[in-house]
Amino acid sequence: MTVRIAVAGASGYAGGELLRLLLGHPEVEIGALTAGGNAGTPLLAHQPHLLPLGDRVLGETNLENLAGHDVVFLALPHGHSAEIAAQLGDDILVIDCGADHRLTDAQAWERWYGGTHAGSWPYGLPELPGQRDVLKNTKRVAVPGCYPTVSSLALAPAVGLIEPEVTVVAVSGTSGAGKSLKPNLLGSEVMGSLSAYGVGGTHRHTPEITQNLSKVAGREVKVSFTPVLAPLPRGILATCTATLTSDDDVRSVYEKAYADEPFVHLLPEGHWPTTGAVLGSNAVQLQVTVDRDLNRLVVVAAVDNLAKGTAGAAVQCMNLALGLPETTGLSTVGVAP
Amino acid sequence: MTVRIAVAGASGYAGGELLRLLLGHPEVEIGALTAGGNAGTPLLAHQPHLLPLGDRVLGETNLENLAGHDVVFLALPHGHSAEIAAQLGDDILVIDCGADHRLTDAQAWERWYGGTHAGSWPYGLPELPGQRDVLKNTKRVAVPGCYPTVSSLALAPAVGLIEPEVTVVAVSGTSGAGKSLKPNLLGSEVMGSLSAYGVGGTHRHTPEITQNLSKVAGREVKVSFTPVLAPLPRGILATCTATLTSDDDVRSVYEKAYADEPFVHLLPEGHWPTTGAVLGSNAVQLQVTVDRDLNRLVVVAAVDNLAKGTAGAAVQCMNLALGLPETTGLSTVGVAP
Amino acid sequence: MTVRIAVAGASGYAGGELLRLLLGHPEVEIGALTAGGNAGTPLLAHQPHLLPLGDRVLGETNLENLAGHDVVFLALPHGHSAEIAAQLGDDILVIDCGADHRLTDAQAWERWYGGTHAGSWPYGLPELPGQRDVLKNTKRVAVPGCYPTVSSLALAPAVGLIEPEVTVVAVSGTSGAGKSLKPNLLGSEVMGSLSAYGVGGTHRHTPEITQNLSKVAGREVKVSFTPVLAPLPRGILATCTATLTSDDDVRSVYEKAYADEPFVHLLPEGHWPTTGAVLGSNAVQLQVTVDRDLNRLVVVAAVDNLAKGTAGAAVQCMNLALGLPETTGLSTVGVAP
Amino acid sequence: MTVRIAVAGASGYAGGELLRLLLGHPEVEIGALTAGGNAGTPLLAHQPHLLPLGDRVLGETNLENLAGHDVVFLALPHGHSAEIAAQLGDDILVIDCGADHRLTDAQAWERWYGGTHAGSWPYGLPELPGQRDVLKNTKRVAVPGCYPTVSSLALAPAVGLIEPEVTVVAVSGTSGAGKSLKPNLLGSEVMGSLSAYGVGGTHRHTPEITQNLSKVAGREVKVSFTPVLAPLPRGILATCTATLTSDDDVRSVYEKAYADEPFVHLLPEGHWPTTGAVLGSNAVQLQVTVDRDLNRLVVVAAVDNLAKGTAGAAVQCMNLALGLPETTGLSTVGVAP
Repeated sequence: MTVRIAVAGASGYAGGELLRLLLGHPEVEIGALTAGGNAGTPLLAHQPHLLPLGDRVLGETNLENLAGHDVVFLALPHGHSAEIAAQLGDDILVIDCGADHRLTDAQAWERWYGGTHAGSWPYGLPELPGQRDVLKNTKRVAVPGCYPTVSSLALAPAVGLIEPEVTVVAVSGTSGAGKSLKPNLLGSEVMGSLSAYGVGGTHRHTPEITQNLSKVAGREVKVSFTPVLAPLPRGILATCTATLTSDDDVRSVYEKAYADEPFVHLLPEGHWPTTGAVLGSNAVQLQVTVDRDLNRLVVVAAVDNLAKGTAGAAVQCMNLALGLPETTGLSTVGVAP
Repeated sequence: MTVRIAVAGASGYAGGELLRLLLGHPEVEIGALTAGGNAGTPLLAHQPHLLPLGDRVLGETNLENLAGHDVVFLALPHGHSAEIAAQLGDDILVIDCGADHRLTDAQAWERWYGGTHAGSWPYGLPELPGQRDVLKNTKRVAVPGCYPTVSSLALAPAVGLIEPEVTVVAVSGTSGAGKSLKPNLLGSEVMGSLSAYGVGGTHRHTPEITQNLSKVAGREVKVSFTPVLAPLPRGILATCTATLTSDDDVRSVYEKAYADEPFVHLLPEGHWPTTGAVLGSNAVQLQVTVDRDLNRLVVVAAVDNLAKGTAGAAVQCMNLALGLPETTGLSTVGVAP
Repeated sequence: MTVRIAVAGASGYAGGELLRLLLGHPEVEIGALTAGGNAGTPLLAHQPHLLPLGDRVLGETNLENLAGHDVVFLALPHGHSAEIAAQLGDDILVIDCGADHRLTDAQAWERWYGGTHAGSWPYGLPELPGQRDVLKNTKRVAVPGCYPTVSSLALAPAVGLIEPEVTVVAVSGTSGAGKSLKPNLLGSEVMGSLSAYGVGGTHRHTPEITQNLSKVAGREVKVSFTPVLAPLPRGILATCTATLTSDDDVRSVYEKAYADEPFVHLLPEGHWPTTGAVLGSNAVQLQVTVDRDLNRLVVVAAVDNLAKGTAGAAVQCMNLALGLPETTGLSTVGVAP
Repeated sequence: MTVRIAVAGASGYAGGELLRLLLGHPEVEIGALTAGGNAGTPLLAHQPHLLPLGDRVLGETNLENLAGHDVVFLALPHGHSAEIAAQLGDDILVIDCGADHRLTDAQAWERWYGGTHAGSWPYGLPELPGQRDVLKNTKRVAVPGCYPTVSSLALAPAVGLIEPEVTVVAVSGTSGAGKSLKPNLLGSEVMGSLSAYGVGGTHRHTPEITQNLSKVAGREVKVSFTPVLAPLPRGILATCTATLTSDDDVRSVYEKAYADEPFVHLLPEGHWPTTGAVLGSNAVQLQVTVDRDLNRLVVVAAVDNLAKGTAGAAVQCMNLALGLPETTGLSTVGVAP
């Protein structure tokens, strides 16, 4: 099979990671690369690591350029996917790495993002219960946010064993913020410093984590979510805790939940996840324990926010939607040290 | 006044930071510098930034070298302070940067550290209610651990407004681990990676945070504590959350609690703490908010683990104990970027 | 003495470092703080580490705000100092941290910076032969560039012993580039990567190094200069080499040259400079050796580009110009690790 | 073809990178993994990113474990390869990532490494003139050092156009130093600091660069080499300069030299190499220019020291020696940002 793909938003970090992965995908032929303000410039100016595509000139993100491909990946700022997606026919597999189609609740969308809800698409986290089947043969995929990916995988197996209120503190590298030219994202500011942002439940990924855990639990799960920015380009380490209400052996619950998953790995006891170990890979590393003094579950999970947290998930969902082996072109081996 | 001081453990990170601060202290004369395995070598080999003291040769950590000073700072691995401290007369102000004299409960000491409890000394966190007076004219000070400092200051004002169970996830630079030659502390491992350790309430600072908050609350406060290691040399950013039980305005509670404190700063609304802003300084930056969806208090606090988190607190306590102005030789201005 | 100072460009990195140092200067009172586009905003928004000045609101950079001070520091982009400087009376000590008044040769200025040459001011590197006297009682100081500072100090003592062609490769942290919002300065791009820029003698600091070394040598010294950007906020490490033409003992030449200098330190043999050791300090660390296989002098020098490389030099020159002890308010102790 | 390989030294950085690459090599089956002091422990304890091999237990590095493979990779400290290599039969392809068999001159070996010269093997840098043919069908390969790889590729095309004395300043990440537990390699020391080492022609890679360039030039080329340690795990950026003696267009000389090379890329004019762009890949990025003020050639080159600088080169040489396509299992796409 040769799948002809296009990437809208090829000059950004998500777009670059999609192309890095797709260059190594054996069934893919890379077609149109488009951008917004960077249209008309060569890819090398934005993605110096993608040398084989370096002299490709970025086109405008429009129907003319994107039509005629088997798969279109949208790696656009939120609010920009809906319009172009609506123009792409139902014969094209459209995979949206942005937020536009993730939330099922229109009111939640309006509260957190503002503007009109574009509707929801099949949610691209195949490791959630029942979700893999939804993604087979779909023509539309909403790729999860990076924090919701790692938080949901960390807590989903436990939602039946805990009070329905969880605490997530997720430390992240800077690439999750994209290439925005903001002073606080300058290297001089980031290196040697830690900072919190989106504190007090104000980060837009909060309702997405809530949606995922509530759906799995079959009741509302409240989420206290705080992201922290740390000095590294890639990687999220999430610490997730909740009060246990069950005497079940949590370790065996997690072992069972992820026994057959190719990308979610419960580490052997005594080993703790690090983001360095999953750099550039589609793997999620997990460890679970119980703080007996508080009867509190503690789950730590590591993910590469650009890979499994965004572009890797997109490729995984493409594989599922096209009927390819789910792991095609994806690795579980990180680039370390 | 000229205060003659000695530092035991001068080749380590805490010892180096003590000397950096004491070199800028107007009332201090630096006397003996001692070490364990590094005795006999010049300070410059271990502390290349302390050029004015570079050719000082480190002595053995023993009574002969440490006696005859007004103040002796102990910057030794836990378990090593008690013996030497017992030999130093009551006329010497002994300030222990290690853990030996922090816990008041002998059983807790045995559970968390093993061995015999050396007894507890006045706890060197003057910003806790009533603690400043305890530290005036004392001859013994137990300097708090770095995580307990930042966590206790973040939550102490709130203990009357919350459920007695708090969650603390504290992200730290690597210098808190000292100069231990462990593979996971190598630059190649640390840079570009995040890792959790001491998960599930197993870190030794857990009982110290519990002790502090419980004392302030007048009842047991349970602490879910998880430290995370991030790629920077210095700094701790702690995210502390708890369920509110009061309708009081938490911001004004914090304003009142720290209005007269020279080193603890509640930032103006809209500004969030960063560790870069307190690098090398004795300042603690705080911000508080309430997550209304969960009725949950969220406090974020930043500290330099080697400064206010260790050596700066030691100097602050020395000032108090000697009757000097508390801020002498200490700065609230960080070195940034 | 109380010296009333103003800082134009207070929201940038050089301005911030000036204020950090001046807050610790015993003879200084901080007056007007001005900015360009950031005028009207509080300092805390730009300099979160300068808490004692945090609520100061930045004024416009104009005569009205800057007049009436004893000293005005200009920390402006090149090309912006000349106009405002011309308006400030000769009774005000004006210290320009920018490039406008560094080059003595009008043609060189036009070639490297373009536009009209504003004229040259006394050059603020007191450690160059004869330069200290020039700076006493002056009312105008051109603070050297960061690369010229470290390169000139590294090579000046040797210019009589070498072929008049030197090679300098200087690795720098990112703060030297200022707060410019350029994609290549984003944390995500900088961390984990090294890059060259201004290669082939195209960096504007090249003619300034050439000017300094040629003046000391009394003949033209050609300079091959390459800067490299590395992932740290502060610090420059320069490797400087040249072919020896003399049999003199170079070490003793350097010892003699800097024996009485308070800020330039030739390290003991076997110790090599690191930028970490001078972080936040006004010290320069040097080491010299000879590669006998090539008969080539190799000098390695470390400096903090914002401190001795910019703001520290400015304060040092202020001290000289005002007749204060040269080291007032400046430290030789770095913040490490 | 299925090639059965063994890796001696599997717990180190070079060994880990070999396994990362070999896990993605379509013709390879991974056999014995051996170690020195780490024998008997599972691979996961040392290489947490190599999850698919995580429960493999490391064997002793001896003949019994290594015999019976088609290819044996030696990733051992220098001085340890010769003995085990001598025991491995001529039917086994032995690829030595260490220094033991790189130098052809026994006297040079003794001067720089001490001890007895083990003899020289075919040198694994196929991009040097004529070297590719030497590597086809060989049973022994000496993989070049990381600095010699990047320096030799940067300067080899130019040796006929320059004075036979070159200056190389190469900035490196920390993984080149291996997992040695030395204080100066701790994260706390490395981050936020730059340091020089092996200054004055004392680094052991100096004679190797000299050997390579002299062989290509057909006359002795003297090399002034200084390595600088920077805060990143991987990557070397080398700045190489020399006085031009020819009027030839150097750019076209480089274009011609590397036109057909799959891994060495002369970037388009205006683009400069960064190590981030080659992270994890086997690519070398080059740019050349001439400083007309000094008539001096300046070449900047970037490489991943563990990939093309060590393990990637080893796999490339294996491919050549086995008659596989040279690029099998190797990528030119970096992991960025």
